[in-house]
Parts: sequence; structure tokens; C-alpha cells
Amino acid sequence: MDAASKHENHLPDLAITSLGAPSADSPLTEARFVNDEERVLVHSRLSDIEPLIKNSSAPSFEIAGPRRKIFFDPKDLTCGIVTCGGLCPGLNDVIRSVTLSLLWQYKVKRVIGFRYGYNGISSNAYEDPIELTPDTVSAIQHIGGTILGSSRGPQSPADMVDQLIANNVRILYIIGGDGTFAGGHDIANEITKRQLPISVIGIPKTIDNDIYCSEKTFGFGTAVEHARSAIHSAHTEARGAWNGVGLVKLMGRDSGFIAASATLANSDVNFCLVPEVPFELDGRDGFLARLVDRINRKRHAVVVAAEGAGRYLEKTGRKDASGNEIYPDIGFFLKERIRRHFSEQNIPVTVKYIDPSYMIRSVPANAADSQFCIQLGQNAVHAGMAGKTDMFVAYWNNHFTHVPLAAAVGRRKKLDPASELWQGVIATTD
Amino acid sequence: MDAASKHENHLPDLAITSLGAPSADSPLTEARFVNDEERVLVHSRLSDIEPLIKNSSAPSFEIAGPRRKIFFDPKDLTCGIVTCGGLCPGLNDVIRSVTLSLLWQYKVKRVIGFRYGYNGISSNAYEDPIELTPDTVSAIQHIGGTILGSSRGPQSPADMVDQLIANNVRILYIIGGDGTFAGGHDIANEITKRQLPISVIGIPKTIDNDIYCSEKTFGFGTAVEHARSAIHSAHTEARGAWNGVGLVKLMGRDSGFIAASATLANSDVNFCLVPEVPFELDGRDGFLARLVDRINRKRHAVVVAAEGAGRYLEKTGRKDASGNEIYPDIGFFLKERIRRHFSEQNIPVTVKYIDPSYMIRSVPANAADSQFCIQLGQNAVHAGMAGKTDMFVAYWNNHFTHVPLAAAVGRRKKLDPASELWQGVIATTD
Amino acid sequence: MDAASKHENHLPDLAITSLGAPSADSPLTEARFVNDEERVLVHSRLSDIEPLIKNSSAPSFEIAGPRRKIFFDPKDLTCGIVTCGGLCPGLNDVIRSVTLSLLWQYKVKRVIGFRYGYNGISSNAYEDPIELTPDTVSAIQHIGGTILGSSRGPQSPADMVDQLIANNVRILYIIGGDGTFAGGHDIANEITKRQLPISVIGIPKTIDNDIYCSEKTFGFGTAVEHARSAIHSAHTEARGAWNGVGLVKLMGRDSGFIAASATLANSDVNFCLVPEVPFELDGRDGFLARLVDRINRKRHAVVVAAEGAGRYLEKTGRKDASGNEIYPDIGFFLKERIRRHFSEQNIPVTVKYIDPSYMIRSVPANAADSQFCIQLGQNAVHAGMAGKTDMFVAYWNNHFTHVPLAAAVGRRKKLDPASELWQGVIATTD
Amino acid sequence: MDAASKHENHLPDLAITSLGAPSADSPLTEARFVNDEERVLVHSRLSDIEPLIKNSSAPSFEIAGPRRKIFFDPKDLTCGIVTCGGLCPGLNDVIRSVTLSLLWQYKVKRVIGFRYGYNGISSNAYEDPIELTPDTVSAIQHIGGTILGSSRGPQSPADMVDQLIANNVRILYIIGGDGTFAGGHDIANEITKRQLPISVIGIPKTIDNDIYCSEKTFGFGTAVEHARSAIHSAHTEARGAWNGVGLVKLMGRDSGFIAASATLANSDVNFCLVPEVPFELDGRDGFLARLVDRINRKRHAVVVAAEGAGRYLEKTGRKDASGNEIYPDIGFFLKERIRRHFSEQNIPVTVKYIDPSYMIRSVPANAADSQFCIQLGQNAVHAGMAGKTDMFVAYWNNHFTHVPLAAAVGRRKKLDPASELWQGVIATTD
Repeated sequence: MDAASKHENHLPDLAITSLGAPSADSPLTEARFVNDEERVLVHSRLSDIEPLIKNSSAPSFEIAGPRRKIFFDPKDLTCGIVTCGGLCPGLNDVIRSVTLSLLWQYKVKRVIGFRYGYNGISSNAYEDPIELTPDTVSAIQHIGGTILGSSRGPQSPADMVDQLIANNVRILYIIGGDGTFAGGHDIANEITKRQLPISVIGIPKTIDNDIYCSEKTFGFGTAVEHARSAIHSAHTEARGAWNGVGLVKLMGRDSGFIAASATLANSDVNFCLVPEVPFELDGRDGFLARLVDRINRKRHAVVVAAEGAGRYLEKTGRKDASGNEIYPDIGFFLKERIRRHFSEQNIPVTVKYIDPSYMIRSVPANAADSQFCIQLGQNAVHAGMAGKTDMFVAYWNNHFTHVPLAAAVGRRKKLDPASELWQGVIATTD
Repeated sequence: MDAASKHENHLPDLAITSLGAPSADSPLTEARFVNDEERVLVHSRLSDIEPLIKNSSAPSFEIAGPRRKIFFDPKDLTCGIVTCGGLCPGLNDVIRSVTLSLLWQYKVKRVIGFRYGYNGISSNAYEDPIELTPDTVSAIQHIGGTILGSSRGPQSPADMVDQLIANNVRILYIIGGDGTFAGGHDIANEITKRQLPISVIGIPKTIDNDIYCSEKTFGFGTAVEHARSAIHSAHTEARGAWNGVGLVKLMGRDSGFIAASATLANSDVNFCLVPEVPFELDGRDGFLARLVDRINRKRHAVVVAAEGAGRYLEKTGRKDASGNEIYPDIGFFLKERIRRHFSEQNIPVTVKYIDPSYMIRSVPANAADSQFCIQLGQNAVHAGMAGKTDMFVAYWNNHFTHVPLAAAVGRRKKLDPASELWQGVIATTD
Repeated sequence: MDAASKHENHLPDLAITSLGAPSADSPLTEARFVNDEERVLVHSRLSDIEPLIKNSSAPSFEIAGPRRKIFFDPKDLTCGIVTCGGLCPGLNDVIRSVTLSLLWQYKVKRVIGFRYGYNGISSNAYEDPIELTPDTVSAIQHIGGTILGSSRGPQSPADMVDQLIANNVRILYIIGGDGTFAGGHDIANEITKRQLPISVIGIPKTIDNDIYCSEKTFGFGTAVEHARSAIHSAHTEARGAWNGVGLVKLMGRDSGFIAASATLANSDVNFCLVPEVPFELDGRDGFLARLVDRINRKRHAVVVAAEGAGRYLEKTGRKDASGNEIYPDIGFFLKERIRRHFSEQNIPVTVKYIDPSYMIRSVPANAADSQFCIQLGQNAVHAGMAGKTDMFVAYWNNHFTHVPLAAAVGRRKKLDPASELWQGVIATTD
Repeated sequence: MDAASKHENHLPDLAITSLGAPSADSPLTEARFVNDEERVLVHSRLSDIEPLIKNSSAPSFEIAGPRRKIFFDPKDLTCGIVTCGGLCPGLNDVIRSVTLSLLWQYKVKRVIGFRYGYNGISSNAYEDPIELTPDTVSAIQHIGGTILGSSRGPQSPADMVDQLIANNVRILYIIGGDGTFAGGHDIANEITKRQLPISVIGIPKTIDNDIYCSEKTFGFGTAVEHARSAIHSAHTEARGAWNGVGLVKLMGRDSGFIAASATLANSDVNFCLVPEVPFELDGRDGFLARLVDRINRKRHAVVVAAEGAGRYLEKTGRKDASGNEIYPDIGFFLKERIRRHFSEQNIPVTVKYIDPSYMIRSVPANAADSQFCIQLGQNAVHAGMAGKTDMFVAYWNNHFTHVPLAAAVGRRKKLDPASELWQGVIATTD
């Protein structure tokens, strides 16, 4: 949100909604309680903040954490958890943390898990919800994926609210990305319309780390770790052949954070292609000419491409069910274009293409992500118990924060080409 | 070679060729020396062996190891190493072991590494050979691939022998598969024709473990380890979706050892498809009907296919440069056929296809493979120093052995459907 | 058993005991059945075997595998499993394989797991046995250790047989080392005395790989893999200091297989100390003088010691509860002696001592060990169902075999200093 | 630095010293240049900052990054690197980043590496410095430890400055902890005294993450990852025995960050003991009584202790060469006290003690640490080239920053018992 510092007027509304005034005493005894008045600044540079403070217009996030007064009575409370969208390392850690924090810290009556995404909350659910107990979740953090299953696509908010009522669910934890949050926001709106005391709390899950208003998301670090292994393989393959090119496609439909971080963590990458930084294939300074130059100098090269890189280079003309244009697979596309270009120039080349996506997103979380997931889950539980709703738990300047769901809908965090991250990539590639 | 026990008349000639009588004393002081008369039986079952022994026709392999008398004078000796074909975990371990064993144990004058396969021994070499010293090879075992580079395809034997002479190479170590050994056999024939004192020693490299007359080959165990990780990912992806299918293509153009071993090491595989066991796609007992049945019972399934499985199912009609028929990619083919079949039956399905091949073959060797590589290299050095030629080092009934190169040309070890390995796969799948 | 080839008269009796003639048809349909007459030779070298065959005195093992006729009626059958002694990678794989093979392949009525070793079969059991179902064991192979728990030490055979009867157990699977097998043999004797139809089948568990009459045991390969990592750490620490010594103690009370294999798999080890090869600390050619020489030449050194190495160097004079002499910890002892020796010679030295034992034995099995565990378990189930008893499943010359429990009691497989393994260690160290 | 928000008057002086006004143009063309006026706030909470801003007393750090004007002329510049103190994952990544950034980005003439810590800069150096080239450092990030070697303890600042002059070194990069920075500050003072144009730039290396004024340090995340593995082993061992206790000692002489983070990343820990949170062994609510209670409830327990935990519990009475009191090993101490306590209560117990320290600190950096190391190294190079001196590169609120060396001398970052980290530990243990 470096950009935000110059466009603070574009910042979404950061005020958090509550179901009502929390009135019961929290059962937590040892915790340091947090007040709603504690806020963390969006900006951290002195020069940005000085005028904002003086104008009393410094944007800030509500700080997450346990509240001394809570809204729900734990002893009658049923909570639900749902996981939506693609797999991401740490999903089970979050499910486990939310479940154990509800049952052990707050001693709520019951936690259920809806199966296979929003479908599991609908009246057409493939499978019934399952009860989540300490036994059910005790060792799930060692396993990748989600024990609840997942799916893509929306369901009717009205139908889902009916099912929440039928299951007596008063806090719904939704673990997903911006599409999931759009759906959660619709559920919250339906709940408001019906004036129901049901809270909807989001936990951002995007392996691409592109959720707006959160510095980091779980699973991203694990993904970078394994992406680095794939790049090592590509480097080894590239060096194994004369004029060898190792080509790796990494996740990142709109944001190149995984590609950039894995590149910077590795330094054997020569070309890093991301959606935020356009490039040309042809021409004197185009990617293909630079690749030929690199191959002629060093006899091998490693190319990393985020899946959304170079989207403008070719169009399939096809659209998916939702009407979004389908783009060609950048990996196959580049592989073909590299081969053709080298062939036209009569330069032998061996291209090895690696697409590690499913092998990355399905692994268990690394230690840093596990720790982050546990803390995310604990804070999501605190927020729900306090009666917050229509919001998600984020992370900013070393604090867990509360952000309205609406703030992340229709916006994405992007890699800033002027950032230290991308400048570091430039300094270490080619 | 279970089959061999019934068809011993089909066993290739196992006699080893020498350049001449070894006459110098070995510089090795501590080793237990081995005689050429020490042989290990091909068979190990009592009932097979009894009649053969009584007929004096029990086939056996010459045992590898250091000889008391050697053929070459180390102080003037230059040796060469070349790596050919696809990458395989352990290549650098073998290069290191051969180099250090020559330089430290036998104190030979010089070891050179030819670059990028047989091309590097030709007069059209892309790159000159490099000298291999203890410093050059000291830490290469931690890195996957081959520091020499590799390539596919033959070169003129006469030209290669000219280059060996030009480089003063007296022992050539060739690390490769059956195609490489065919080339090595041609070099050995050319050397015989010219009556030169040059030894050609093979070290079998086949990640598929399909070299004839050797129970195991380096890199295979490492490949199975990483294949298992890919299967875990497929299992996680399959369970993450309602009616989820995880599909993994593994190496194995002609032999299904990797697919079968990884399946047995994992037990989350439901269908294991290998070249040696034909299957039908359609029909009541066909693969697709069985997959539907499995999905309806359990809502997820894992399918593993060796790349050569079901080759007869579809033909591309295209041939490669060598005239071999090109087969379709079994992974994409199955993915498409599964989707179509489920669609025709109006059953929703989510298929996730994983092709981990380049991520597997490029990793460093695990400990067991590293140890095996070191011992292979040491035995190859012993064989070359003793003046053996036109042979490779193999492993049989717990002994390293000598096998003529010709014995592995045009033959492949296959998975026996009656074997314990495959019966174990049957018992644990579906 | 190289040594055995020269001392075949010392080979234990290899005849297998049965509870009676198997008479029921096996429910297995697809398997290749094995006859009791199928035997694998102990020896594999032609020169060893020729005279033995001609004398009709070639020792051989009964081959394991499914029998066409079985002894027990699966539909009323309860089987028990117990794990004894120290942890070893693969224990859960074996528990899982035995359970699933009994329930799925043979469709036995019930499988129970006794808790915490032989204590769990005694009338003083800490905990009651638990039922093992497909659900209970479905994912246990991903977790190290044993879900049943373990303990050391014997229990009264008569008491244990009483408990087996009380639990209606007809086949008892004991997973443990030679001490456990001694206990199992006592149980089998008690059963014979009472003429009960109860089978006792052993599955050898020794991370040291020192069970007699079996070429390999599960967990050993995994242990070598992780031992190699510990050695890498020692090497890194040694190189990080001027005159740095990295010292690693590895498992191996009586046999140095882990130390030797990890050394050979690594090649950064300079001194490998094992129980089978005595060494002196002091004197001109003693270990300490050689270490000083190495340090003076290279400024760092890596020392690996099996826990039983150099046992004669110092005595504690203490005995344990069983009357066995307690030996000093070789790691602390060497660390102290190295420091003192360098200090006496006024040579600075930095010694870093690593004892990775508990971090090695507690990990999950690698792929090769998992596969081996599954096949071991399947063969143990076949043997028990066929009515074999007082025996364990072993592995020899590529076949799973049956060996009497008594054959492994009071004997241990040792590293042969003349073997290829140890000669390879010599060639790559110092 | 939460505490700092209330004690800002205790904040050290944050002003950065320069050798002089930078006057040459930076050779960097693509970078986003940073001005010395860009500063990041120490605090990030709105309520802390408002009054500070209004008082114009908000403490802030100078932001790191490339400057448009530089102080040194690259074409004649020789720079030196030294690594001091214990090993830490990422040391080689930092050496590599500094070397490549100097040679490739700034095109300086020469980079040398001093060997074995400050000893290598002294006139009594064990070894001469080595030249660092792109070839020398190309693959060192794959290897743990430091290729330069390290040592502890100070050297005479005057002598070291003499050697810097003798080697023509104008920028010295010191990689180490607070003791190393104290030494670096002494060197800088000596340089000031002699009015020499030599810059001293620190790069903080503390595996414990306890450097003052930096949110994180390299190697810490990798250490937590591997500490978690050790805890898994302890958990497995604990569950393998009836009344089993797994005890792990982790790094952390003064700060418990590794212990707390690994505990939170794992959640199988029942007791986490750190230096910042005192505890009693005995008494009704003491650690031992709570451990007995846990064992009686669950039959196993995992205890994690930072090495500095419970330092007040027992004194050795011995002091080291520098006069610091030597404390007993908390691991052995606890193991003994646990055994004694259970024995006194006649409760059987099995304690398995794991000390993984050398196996943790010697591994290569994980991806996140590698990326951080590269960026640290780049920023250290920028700072040195700009003529900054007597400072180190830190990280704060998502920015790399400049901090005076003196600010980290005699201060340590401590775990705040009221922090989210420790509250999370409390919520998930016992």
C-alpha cells in the first residue's frame, strides 16, 4: 500500500460493523484485552504521516485481539467453518486453530464444518456438515489441503442464510479469497436485511498474497519455498543441456509476488515475468532477443513466469462460464515461442517446462505459515465472539487487524515495480 | 530375471572381454582383492539351481572388485568420463566417485570430463573437455543433474575413437542407458578393429530401473521418493474436491517400476497403470467404469500412470527423427477421457493432473543412491584399471558384477505381473 | 552371511514350525501362491554353492508368500499386534499393513493392538488393547513412532498366553528386535506346552540392521538418510571454525551399519568408528594422532562413531538392572579426549558434538522403507494365516523368507571388515 | 519495541554517521533512489503516534536503499567481509549478496573475505584473506555455515585498522551479533580517531532474533522450521512410551523467540519455558507438579526450554574466560529434576532429551531467509557506497533501515509476555 500513501482518498472505508454491543464477560482470563479504539496506521513513513496526523485524516485499521466484553454466550453457541476456492498450504491449520480456540478458549457448545465450499451451506449440498472436535482436528495440520473439501462458485445468499439458521449457526468463519469474501459480504447483507444475530468473519486465503489491505496471507511463504525447489529443478535441467532453457510457470493470475519472491530467494533465475510489468516478446529488446543473448553468453537460462504474465500477448477468444476471457497457458505459449524463435535463428535449444502448481498448493504449511495460521484463527475467533461481522482478519505493520469484507472485494494487492522487492529482482536477474 | 529361470537359453552371453593380461601390481594396499573366478549365480532359488549345477550349466556373473594385478600404469594414465541421455539423481555422485577413486586410490595422472554427452567426444563438440580434480568434484554430490552436461543421440564411433586418441584417453567411463551402451559397444568394436589399448566401461543410468541384468540402478530410489510426494499432492487435491480425481504421470516408457514402487510405498493410490499390464478404458470392467464406481463409493480417487502405459489406446500416426512412433501423452489423454466419460454420465468430476518428471529427475540423490553411486564408481574404476572393456558394472544378489555391454542392448528389464511387487500393488489399490 | 559360507556348520536350524496342516482355501483370488517347497539359497556365489549342492547340504530359507491353503478360518479370527523396544521409522507402516492385509485381503473378524509393548499383553497392562480398523490406521504412515506405544523388558510368558486366550487372539504379530523375539519364542514355547492353536509371527525391527538371517530391516535406510543430514551439520560446523572437529554419535550398539553406510553416502567423513573394527586412541597410529595430522593438513575434520565403538576404551564399572555392563557415552568420551589431547599439544581445537539419535528414530519412513514395510506386513499375514508359528519374516537374495525366531536370538549380524561396504568406507575416509 | 512506545526517552540515538558528503554519481541506473530524509516511524499505533507527531518528537529510522550520490569511487575500491560468532542459516547468502551487489551493481574493483572472524583481520590471523569473485560465491547459498569461517572474541581495534589499511579495504562488512557490533563500533571509533575514509557496516546475525531495533534477523525463520522438526520428534518419542516426556532444548540465551515461535507453529508443546517468563520448579503450581498433572491426564507431554530459561534455578559457580557466569545446561538439569520428582512420587516416567542446536544452526537458509539475506546484503552495499559508517542494516515496519551500531550494543530485544506471540503460546499449551 505504498501507492496508497499518495492516493489515500482511494482507500476503502475501514470502519468495522458489529451485531450489537458486547455485554457478556469474556471467559478468557490470561489474555491482554484489546480495545476497539486501538488502531494501527496504514502508513509508516514519517513524511506521509505528519500531514495526515495534522489533518486528523490518518487512515488506520482497528486492531484485532481478545475483547473484555463479548457478544455471544458461548454455552449455547454453534459456529460454522467453510473453506472455498483453490487449495492453499495452511487451510487445515486455520480450521484447527478456529476450532480449538472456540472449544478450548471460549468453551462454545459446538463447531461444525460445512463440506466442499459454499455448496455445503446450500440446500443442494453434496454432503452434510460434520462436527469438528479436538479429536477430529488434532493432527490435521500435518496434512495438506482442507479436511472440509472446497469448491468454487457462489450460492444463493438467501438459501445459505436459511441453512445457517437450520443449523443454528451464529458465527460463520469463511476461509477464502476475494470471490469468497464477495459471497460472504452478500450473506452478511442478507443477515442484516433479516436482522439476524449472525456474524460472518473472513480469514483471507490467497496463495498469491494479493488480498487488499493485508501485508501477508497464509500459505504464501510455503508456496515460495516450494516454488524455489521447482526453480532449482529448472536450473539443473537447463545446465544439463547445451543451450538449455528451464521454464517454470508459477501461480499468480493477477499479482507476481510468488514469482518475484521465489526469484529473489534463489538468484538462479535470469528472467522473471509478472503481470504487473509488461514485456515484449519480439524486437531488439524483447524477451526472445534477450534470451538468445543470455544463451549465447552462458549456454543456459532459467525463466520464471507468473500465470498472468503477458496476458496481452495472445488471446484465445474463448470465455468461461462466468464470461471471463480465457487466456492461453503462458507456459506452453512461451515454450512454443522460444522453440520457434531459436529454430528461426538456427540456434539449437532444449526447453524444459515445469508447472509445479498442484504440487505446491497441496503441501502442509511451513512453520512460519503454521504460526501465522494459528494466530489468524485465534484473532478470527476473538472478532466473532465480540460480535464483529462482515469483516476479515488481516495483518499490517506487525499487528493483526480488522478490515471490512467489502474493502477486499474488487481490489487486489499488486506488485509495485518501484518496490524494493522488484528492484531486488532486477538487480539479481539476467 | 525370474523369467530367466525358465528361459535360461535366452540369457545373453555373460563372458567379459579384457584388453590383455593385467601384469602390474595394484597400488591398493588395504583392499580385499577379487579373482576373475569369483562368480555370482544368476538364480537364487534352490529348485532352479540344483539341476543347473548338476548339468554344470548354471549361469553366473563375474564379480566386480579390485584386482591384485592391473593392466594400466596409473602414472601415465588419462581417463575420460561422459554422461549421456536424460538427467537422473546421482549422476554427479558417480562422476565424483570415479574421479576420486582414480586420483586417490589409483593415483592416475589425469581425469577429463567430456561435455554434453557423446557430442563432447566428437570432432564437432560444442565444448572442450574439462579437467576433473578433487577440487572440481568436492561438493557436486549436493547438486542434481550432471556437471558435465548431457545430450541424446549417437556420434560416429570412428570419430569418437579419434578424439579419445587425441586426448590420450585410455579408459572411457560412459554413464548412460541402453542407447548409450549401444554407442559404447560400437566404440569398443572400433577400438578392437584398430587394436588399441583403450577400455570402455559402462555405468548404467536409467531412472526407470530397466537395465537388463542389473537388479537396481542409481537414482531409482530417489525418484520413487519424490514420486511419492507427487502422489501425496494428487491425493490431497483429489480429497479437496467432491468427486475429485488426482492423476499423476510418472516416468516409465517401457517399465512400470517407478509407478508400482511409488504406489506400494504410498497406498493412497487407487489405480496404477503400467506398460506391462494392459487395461481397457471402456466396457463394464474397463478403467473408466471402475473409476466411476470408486468415485461413487468414496468421492475421490488417485490414478498413477507410467508414461508408457496404455500405449495401444491411441496412436498419433507421427514418427520421430529416428522413425519411432510418437505416442500421445498418457496424462493428457487420460484427463480428457475421464472428463468426457464423467460428462457423458452426468457425474460432476474435478480432475487435477500432475506431471512431476522434471522435478524428480533433477534432484540430488538420496543417501541410499549416493552410497550405491560411490560403490558403482569404485567398481567401475577397478574394472577399467584391470583392463576389462566393453562391459558395465551391475548389481545382482548383493554383489557388484561385470556384464558385457551387449547384454543390455536391445533388452529391457520388465515388471513381472506375477511378482511380489505387482501382487502387492494389486492388494493395496482400488 | 559371507562368513557363513565358510562356517555353514554354525548356521542355525532353518526349519519352520506349523500349528498343523492348513486345510481351508485361501480367500485370495488373484495372488500367485507359494509352496513350502520353494526355497532360496543362503549362499549366492557359484564356488560356495557347487560343493554344497553336490553334497545335498546347501542351506536355504523357506520362501514367504500367500499359501493356497490356510490354517485359520478368517471369519472367526482375532489377531493381535504388539510393538516392543525403541522407536524405528516404519513401525506405523507395518501396523497398517498387517491390519489392512488381515481385514481387506483375508477378511478376518477383528484386529487388536496391545499397548506399550509386552506390558500391554500382561495382566498388569497400563492400558487396554485398542481395536484397529481401516479408519484407525488410514493415515498413520505419515507419523513417526508407533500408535500402539512401546516398552522394553520381558513379561511372564504364561501370563501373556493367558491374556491372549482372554482376548481370543489366535495370531500374535510381534514387531521388535532380538530381545523381543526371545520373548516371542518363550510365548511360542508356552503355547506348544499347552497345545494351543495360537501362532506367533515376528516382524524384525532393528534400526541398526543387525538381525541375523535378514539382509535388511525396515527403518535402516531412513535412519541412514537422516544420519547423513547430521553429518552434513557436523561438516558445516567443523568448517566454520579453524581446527574445527564435527563429532557425530550414531546408533549401533553392536553393529556399525548405520555409521558405515552414512559415511559412504556422504564422503565428508574422515574417521568412521564402529564396534567391529577396534582402534586405539593413543600412540603414533592412534586415532588422536591421526586426527591431529588431519587437522594440521586440512584445518577441519568430521568424526562419526557408532555408539558401541571403542567400548573397551573405558569402563564405568556400573551395571544396569539386567546385569549388563553400562558403557560410557562414546560421544562425550571422545569429545573430552580430543579436547585434552589437543590441549596437551597446545593446538587450538573446536569440537562440536551432535547426538541425533532421537531425531532420527522418530521420523516417518522414507518411500523405500514404506514399501518394504508393506510387503513385510503382507508376508507376515500370509505366514500367520497359513498356520506358521515361532518364526519371523526376513529378506534374503531378493525374496521374503521365513526364519525361526530362535535363529535370531543370541546372534547378531555384524559388519564384515573385509566387505565391500567397509572397504568402501576405508577408500573414502581420512 | 512495544515497550519503547511507553519509554521513548530510553530509545537510543538513531542518527546515522557518514564519512563525508557523497559526491559521485551512482552507477545504478534502474533503481528507485532513496533520500536520507525518508524515515520510518518507530511506532505504528495511532494513539502512540498522535502525541509524538504533535510534539515533533516521533522517533524514526533512516530508510535504507540506493542513494543517487555515492561516496566511494567503485573503480579503485576494495571491500572486505567478515563473519563472527556462531553459525546461523543464511550467512553464505549474505556473503554472496554483498559480493555480487558490489561487483555487479557497483562494479567495485575487489572484494576480499577475512577468515575466521575478527582473528582474520588481526596481525595474528590464522589464515590470509581470500578474494571473493562471482565464481567463488556462485553456489554457496546451497551450503550451510560460512565459507569464510568464524570465531568468537575481540581483537585489538588498532591492529585491525592497521590490517584494513594494509589490505586497502575501504568498506568493511561485519556480519555478527551485538558482541561483533561492539567490536565494529570500536573499529569505527579508531577509524574516526585516525580520520580515515573507511566505512564499517554491520549486518545483524542472531539466530535468536534478539538484536535491538530490528524486527527480524536472518536465519531465525529457518531455525524455527527445524526446531519444529525436533519438537515433532520429541512428541513422537513422548507418545511412544507410557508416561513419556519429550524434552527439547532450543537456542535462546536471553530471548525466547525461537522457543515461543516453534511452540506456536506446532501446538503439540505442553510447556514452553523462556528466559523472559520466570517459573518455579517446585510447589503446588510449579512446573513439576503441573507436569505430573498433565502426565496423569494424557500419559505424555512435550516440554520446550530455551537455553536461558530458568537460569536462576541453579548456579555452577564457574565463570568463563570473559568473567561471565556459566550456567548449567537447562536440558540436562530439567531431565534430572523431572526424573527425580517422578521417582519420589513413585510414578514411572520415560524422559527423552533432544538438543538439536548444532543441527539447526548449520542448515542452509529457507526461501524467506534467503530472500531477506539478499535484500539485507544489497542494502548494506548501498549504505557503504553512500559513505555511511558505524551503522547496521535493520528491518522495521516493512522497510529496511539504518541503525547506529551503538544502538544494539548492550541491549537485546526481549519477548514481551503481554505480546500476541506469548499470549498465543499460553492459549495453545498445557
